[in-house]
Amino acid sequence: MPILEILDYAGVAVFAATGALSASRKQLDIIGYLFLASVTGIGGGTMRDVVLGATPVFWVTNPTYLLVCVTVAVVLFFTAHLFDSRYRVLVWLDAIGLSAYSVMGAAKGYAATGSATVALVTGMLTATFGGVLRDMLAGEPSVLLRPEIYVTAALVGAGAFVLASVAGLPLVATSTLGVIAAFVVRGGALKFGWTLPTGKALPGRDPDDVM
Amino acid sequence: MPILEILDYAGVAVFAATGALSASRKQLDIIGYLFLASVTGIGGGTMRDVVLGATPVFWVTNPTYLLVCVTVAVVLFFTAHLFDSRYRVLVWLDAIGLSAYSVMGAAKGYAATGSATVALVTGMLTATFGGVLRDMLAGEPSVLLRPEIYVTAALVGAGAFVLASVAGLPLVATSTLGVIAAFVVRGGALKFGWTLPTGKALPGRDPDDVM
Amino acid sequence: MPILEILDYAGVAVFAATGALSASRKQLDIIGYLFLASVTGIGGGTMRDVVLGATPVFWVTNPTYLLVCVTVAVVLFFTAHLFDSRYRVLVWLDAIGLSAYSVMGAAKGYAATGSATVALVTGMLTATFGGVLRDMLAGEPSVLLRPEIYVTAALVGAGAFVLASVAGLPLVATSTLGVIAAFVVRGGALKFGWTLPTGKALPGRDPDDVM
Repeated sequence: MPILEILDYAGVAVFAATGALSASRKQLDIIGYLFLASVTGIGGGTMRDVVLGATPVFWVTNPTYLLVCVTVAVVLFFTAHLFDSRYRVLVWLDAIGLSAYSVMGAAKGYAATGSATVALVTGMLTATFGGVLRDMLAGEPSVLLRPEIYVTAALVGAGAFVLASVAGLPLVATSTLGVIAAFVVRGGALKFGWTLPTGKALPGRDPDDVM
Repeated sequence: MPILEILDYAGVAVFAATGALSASRKQLDIIGYLFLASVTGIGGGTMRDVVLGATPVFWVTNPTYLLVCVTVAVVLFFTAHLFDSRYRVLVWLDAIGLSAYSVMGAAKGYAATGSATVALVTGMLTATFGGVLRDMLAGEPSVLLRPEIYVTAALVGAGAFVLASVAGLPLVATSTLGVIAAFVVRGGALKFGWTLPTGKALPGRDPDDVM
Repeated sequence: MPILEILDYAGVAVFAATGALSASRKQLDIIGYLFLASVTGIGGGTMRDVVLGATPVFWVTNPTYLLVCVTVAVVLFFTAHLFDSRYRVLVWLDAIGLSAYSVMGAAKGYAATGSATVALVTGMLTATFGGVLRDMLAGEPSVLLRPEIYVTAALVGAGAFVLASVAGLPLVATSTLGVIAAFVVRGGALKFGWTLPTGKALPGRDPDDVM
């Protein structure tokens, strides 16, 4: 199985698991698990394929991805309550998913357009959109608003992949470099609480504030 | 008019009505009614067409669907306040919309790919996505998080349609079976409060919770 | 540079600025600014291109739009805290963005289909969708739910453009008319608090309320 396909299945499975866990938090029924696992697992890749015009999207042309989501949802429906100290495992799995998907998204965007800028954005979107959808649907505060580094790791992974590709490295090397770079950044944020400096606050608002 | 087109117009009109009612709850102006009625009415089908690559989407190639949404929005702008005991009617109309759209979505997905798995997912997405968008835009808690059976009914309708199609029944029969199956499940949930068992709750969270 | 391209860049830049300002409110880091500026800047146009089947979408075929978003985000990361009385400037820039995008969206929809109804809807979607996404992602109440006229201005701009197009005016005239019409309506709403009458409230809810 080629490297990009492995990353794709890994990303789908791991994000599906985070969706199922979110369903567990909300004590949903099995269909709620299936729904959130599927939307989270395939959401980022769907967005990527749609903006690139690569339709029908990946899970329509290859429904195996859906079966991965269903399997993950069913397994977690019966086992999610067991995660306690093992919850930490899931956080790290999420970091693996983010890393895999940032490279997958960048690779598809770069192959379709040859533009490094587009590759960075499709990498970022693919890696984060599933999680954003999951949080919106589950009514939880978005991961985007947390101080901890998250989107940055996706950008770093996509950027490392693009740089290595421009340098002419083979796909296995560029993909591995991208995944490792994203994982190191996200892993460091998890382990050491890395953040970036924030913008200064606005002093006040006008009464005719429209946003 | 062929059966699938009837289901499509029924789904659009009924979901548009639920969007207009949501606008009524929020006491929006007529444009707010138009916006929520349109997004709810065409949201699910738009998502379905986009992931299948069936673009331009259905309401771009046939703007009559938009006129249906506009008509429903205008009628409800002047009459929504009259619904009191008749509100119950709307709940049941929503069940009809869900039933019609689960079959429409499954039929389009099945025709495009021949995959039962894809048909189940496009059926589920088409039937539920409009309502999810409506709740998000109106700032109401998502129907997905309610204990009552909802998404399940869409899956049952799509599943009955696919099974009957595999069995070789003609389109009128498969569509009718699917709609009835979905409506029985959703209707039972409404009338008897049917729910599915939920997953067990998580005992606690780690401090490094990332989702 | 043709008129529609000018409107497109103006719309992207101004909406990106509102996304960056939203990031400033939430005190996000630079990547948060980039993310919200990009999603807000390109969100409406992405939705427009996707439903019209004009994929790959505009920023994939021309990444300059992304560089506009990045530039705006970086500039505002360092300067947003200075806006105080200048915040009023931003509100009016947002009105310009809405006006530009309502015409851009209507023009693309009209060129693709020749349908006035579709042009109105793509104008409305393009002008409002970026802001809706921004508010959802930032966890702020949607601009759609505010009493003040907003979506209406987009519809008026798209409508003026379509009417002038049907009347056979050249593109520069139809575009200018549309932008001015939208801006007058939105500007009047900002300056004089214009609202439309709202629908009457529902007297109560049934216990079996499903939405």
